[in-house]
Amino acid sequence: MISLGILDRGSAVPLHEQLAHGLRAAVLAGRVSGGEAVPSTRALAADLGVARGTVVAAYEILAGEGYLLPRPGGATVVAEVTARSPALRECADTSAVEESPLMDLRPGRPGTTGLADAAWRSAWRRATAGDPDSDVSDTAGAPALRAEIARYLGRARGLDVAASEVVVTAGTSDAMLLTLLALSPRGGGSRLRVGFENPGYPRVHRMLRRLGIDAVPLPVRLGAGLDLEAVERHRDLDAFIVTPHHHYPLGSRLDAEARARLLAWADREDVVVIEDDYDSEFPHGRAPLPPLHLLDPARVVLIGSLSKTLTPAVRCGWVISTGVVGERIRATRDDLDLPVSLVQQHALALYLAEGSLARHTARRRREYRHRRRLLLEAFAGVPGVELVATDGGLHAVALLPGRGEDTERAIVADLAERGLRVAPLAAYVWEGAAVSLPAGIVFGYAEPSTVALVEAIDVVLAVLRAHAGAGGSAGWTSAEHRA
Amino acid sequence: MISLGILDRGSAVPLHEQLAHGLRAAVLAGRVSGGEAVPSTRALAADLGVARGTVVAAYEILAGEGYLLPRPGGATVVAEVTARSPALRECADTSAVEESPLMDLRPGRPGTTGLADAAWRSAWRRATAGDPDSDVSDTAGAPALRAEIARYLGRARGLDVAASEVVVTAGTSDAMLLTLLALSPRGGGSRLRVGFENPGYPRVHRMLRRLGIDAVPLPVRLGAGLDLEAVERHRDLDAFIVTPHHHYPLGSRLDAEARARLLAWADREDVVVIEDDYDSEFPHGRAPLPPLHLLDPARVVLIGSLSKTLTPAVRCGWVISTGVVGERIRATRDDLDLPVSLVQQHALALYLAEGSLARHTARRRREYRHRRRLLLEAFAGVPGVELVATDGGLHAVALLPGRGEDTERAIVADLAERGLRVAPLAAYVWEGAAVSLPAGIVFGYAEPSTVALVEAIDVVLAVLRAHAGAGGSAGWTSAEHRA
Repeated sequence: MISLGILDRGSAVPLHEQLAHGLRAAVLAGRVSGGEAVPSTRALAADLGVARGTVVAAYEILAGEGYLLPRPGGATVVAEVTARSPALRECADTSAVEESPLMDLRPGRPGTTGLADAAWRSAWRRATAGDPDSDVSDTAGAPALRAEIARYLGRARGLDVAASEVVVTAGTSDAMLLTLLALSPRGGGSRLRVGFENPGYPRVHRMLRRLGIDAVPLPVRLGAGLDLEAVERHRDLDAFIVTPHHHYPLGSRLDAEARARLLAWADREDVVVIEDDYDSEFPHGRAPLPPLHLLDPARVVLIGSLSKTLTPAVRCGWVISTGVVGERIRATRDDLDLPVSLVQQHALALYLAEGSLARHTARRRREYRHRRRLLLEAFAGVPGVELVATDGGLHAVALLPGRGEDTERAIVADLAERGLRVAPLAAYVWEGAAVSLPAGIVFGYAEPSTVALVEAIDVVLAVLRAHAGAGGSAGWTSAEHRA
Repeated sequence: MISLGILDRGSAVPLHEQLAHGLRAAVLAGRVSGGEAVPSTRALAADLGVARGTVVAAYEILAGEGYLLPRPGGATVVAEVTARSPALRECADTSAVEESPLMDLRPGRPGTTGLADAAWRSAWRRATAGDPDSDVSDTAGAPALRAEIARYLGRARGLDVAASEVVVTAGTSDAMLLTLLALSPRGGGSRLRVGFENPGYPRVHRMLRRLGIDAVPLPVRLGAGLDLEAVERHRDLDAFIVTPHHHYPLGSRLDAEARARLLAWADREDVVVIEDDYDSEFPHGRAPLPPLHLLDPARVVLIGSLSKTLTPAVRCGWVISTGVVGERIRATRDDLDLPVSLVQQHALALYLAEGSLARHTARRRREYRHRRRLLLEAFAGVPGVELVATDGGLHAVALLPGRGEDTERAIVADLAERGLRVAPLAAYVWEGAAVSLPAGIVFGYAEPSTVALVEAIDVVLAVLRAHAGAGGSAGWTSAEHRA
C-alpha cells in the first residue's frame, strides 16, 4: 500500500486532486517504481474511504500527465518517469551534459501537445486543397480571418470590433513594428519618442533601439506596478507601450483607477497608447479587466496574437485601431506590404470559424491552472524565495529578495548546468536605467510535460534555496545534484 | 471542313503549333461553334497531309488551353469559350458591367492553376500533421528551409551560398524592409540615402518614403536601360536598389560591361547594392546572366522570392548576404523578429526538398513562353503600338510612342470599362521626377486561362489601336465592342 498522506475533506482542493497530488509525489519520490501496477480503483477507493469516482478522476489526471500508463486489459502501471527528463539526468557524466539538449523553460513557450488535432489538420487540409490565390488583394489581411479575429475579440475580450478595424500581422513583433512605423513625431520632429515599461519585454527595447526611436524607459516597481507619477511627468511622448493586464514580466496589473489616470494623461499629452494584450486568455487568480482599447478606441492601439493560445511559431497576430491612427496604420501596412501567408490566413480563419481556437484555449487554460497550482504548492513557504506574476499567463518570476545580479547570474548558470534554461530578470531591464530589483529568474511553465515540469521545479527550487542561503531541504541537498 | 490557313513547313514554328494556332483562331473567330465535334485526328491528318502525331499534339495543346473538350468515348468537341470571359461580356448591360468582376491583368500575378497538386498537398499535410513548435528558435529561418533555398539558388542561379548566408523573409517586401532597416547612414548621418530605379517598382518608392529615407531616383531610359552616367555622378548614396536582369517594368538588362561599371562605382563610393532578382526563373528570349551577388558577395545583397514561381500569396522570400552587411541584416532580423510561420517554412522546405518547386517552375516556364508567343504574334506589326519587356518574366509593357499621360489614363479607363484591369506606366514613375515616357500600360499574362488571355489581348489591342489613331483592323473595329 502506498502512503498517500491524509486527504483533507475540509480543503478547497477537491479530493481527487489531493489524491492525484499524493500519488504524483509518491511516484516522484520513488516510493513506487516504474512498471509497478497501481491498485484497482475499487480497492483504493475502499481503502481510502472515498467514492470510486474520486480515484478514477485522480488516475485520469495522472494518466494525462504521463505518470500512469493504462495497459490493454485494464491494469494501470506507473511510468518510468525519472529517465525521461533531461533535468534529472546523470550529471556525473559531463560529456553527456554538454551533448544533452537543455529543457527550455524560458517564458513565452506555450504547450502545443495535442494542438495538431483533427480540427487543426482539417483546417490546413482544406486551406491547401485548392490552388492558392495569385496575389494578396487586401494588405490588411484576408477578410475571412479579419472577421474571425473581430468575432474572437468580442467573445474573449468583450470588444465590439469591426473587421475593418483589424489588421492581420505576423505576430506581436510585426504588430509592434507596423504601429511604430505608422506613427509620426509630434510637431514635425525628426525622431519618434516612445515610452516603454522598464523592466519590460526585451524585444520592445531592441526594436526601439534598432528603429532609432528615442526610447524613454518608464519604471515599473515590484509589487506596486507602473509608476504613474513618473509617467505623468512626461509631456513629450508620442506613444507609450504598456502591458496593463499582466505586466511583462513582473505580473502587476493596472486597476480601474490606474487605467483612468493613464488614459487621462495620454489624452492630455496626446500620447498614443500601444496596449500589448499578450496573455489575457489565461487569467488564473483573478478575472481579466476589459482592454484599455474599449475605454478610448481612438487613442489606444490594441495588439494581440495567437502566440500564447496556439504558438508563436504560427506568427499570427493583429492590430486593432480606429480613427486617424487606424488610417495611418492601414496606409503603412499597404506601403510595407502584408507579411502573412494567405494559405495560413485561410487555414486559421477556418480553425477560428469552427470554434476550435476557443476549445483549444479552454483545454490549455485548465491545464495551465493545474500547473500553476503545482508551482504555487511547490514554492509555498520556501524561505528566502518569492514567486510573483502567477495571476495569469504562462510564466512566473522567482525572486531572491536581498540578493543581487551576481547571485542571479550564478543561479542561471547553475540551472543551465543542470539542463534547465531560464531567463535572468536582468534581461528585462533597459540598459543603463537605474532599476532596483532583487535577483530573479523568469521561467515558463506551459511547454514541458507536467512530469518534466514537476521535476524541473524541484531542480529550480534546490538551486534557488542554495543561493537564498536557506541550505538544503529534507531529503534533498543541492550537493547531491552537482557533478 | 474548317479552314485552317496554310501550314508552313519551312517555318521555325513546329507544325503542331502552327496547326494549334490555326484551330484556335477558327474557334475564336466563331468559324466553329461550341459543342461542335472536331474531326478525328486520323481524318484531319489525312486531309492536311501531316503525321497523325502532329494533330494529336495540336489537339492536346488546345485541350490544355480549354478550347477543346475531350468527351468520354473519344469524341472531342469545341468549348463554349466566348461566354466565359468577362472581357467579352455584353457591354450594353451597364448594370452587369458594374457588378461583374474585373479580369485582373495587373503584373505580378502568376498562374497558380495546378499548383495544389499531390506534391503540394502532401508537403502541407506532413508539415501540419504533428504538433507545431512552441517557439521560433532561429530568427533567420528554419534551418531546413534555409538549406533548401541555398540549394535552389545553386541550381537555379549558379550561386554557391551557405545556409548561414540565407535569411528567410515574408517575400520581397519584407526582404527589402529588413535590408533597409539594417543599413546605417554613412558618416553618422541621421538619414539613409538610397538610390532606386525610376521608373521602378512602386512599392520600393512607397517604402522609402514611409521609412523617411532620403530617396534618390536614378533614371532608366526606355531602350537604353539604366543611365550609368547619372548613377556614377552620385557620391553619397548608402545603397542602390536595382533590377539588373529584367528591369521592372521596362525589361532592359544590364549587360556584362554595365554590371562591371555599376559594381566599380559601388565599390569606389562604398554603396551597398540591393539586387532584386524578381523573375529570373522565367527567361524567354535570352539566357539569364548570373546574379551581381556572385561578382561581389560582400557588397551585393541578393533578394529573391517564391512570388513569381509559386505565388506572392505564400509570402516567402530570402535575403542572401555575407560579411559585415550580412551580420547587420541577421542582427536586425533578430531584433525585429522573423515574420514567417514555421508551419509554412516546414511545408515549403519539404516541397523544395523533393524537387517539386523545380518541376512546377519548369511547367510554368513552358506555359509562359507559349503565352508570350501568343502575345508577340498578336502585337506583331500593329501600327503605333510597341511591345517591350517580353524577354523574361510574366509581364509586358505596351507603349504608344508619341502619346502622353492623357492617352494613358483614357486607355486604362477604357479597359476598365471593358472589364480589364491593367497598370498605367505612370504608376511606376517617382512623383515629381522628370521622366520622359510615352503612354503605356503594364500588364501580366500569367494568371488568366489562355482562352481568357487571348480574348483579353484582343480587347487590349482594340483599345490601343483606337488610341493610337490607327483605326480598326480587318474584321475588328473598336466600335463593335463598345456599348
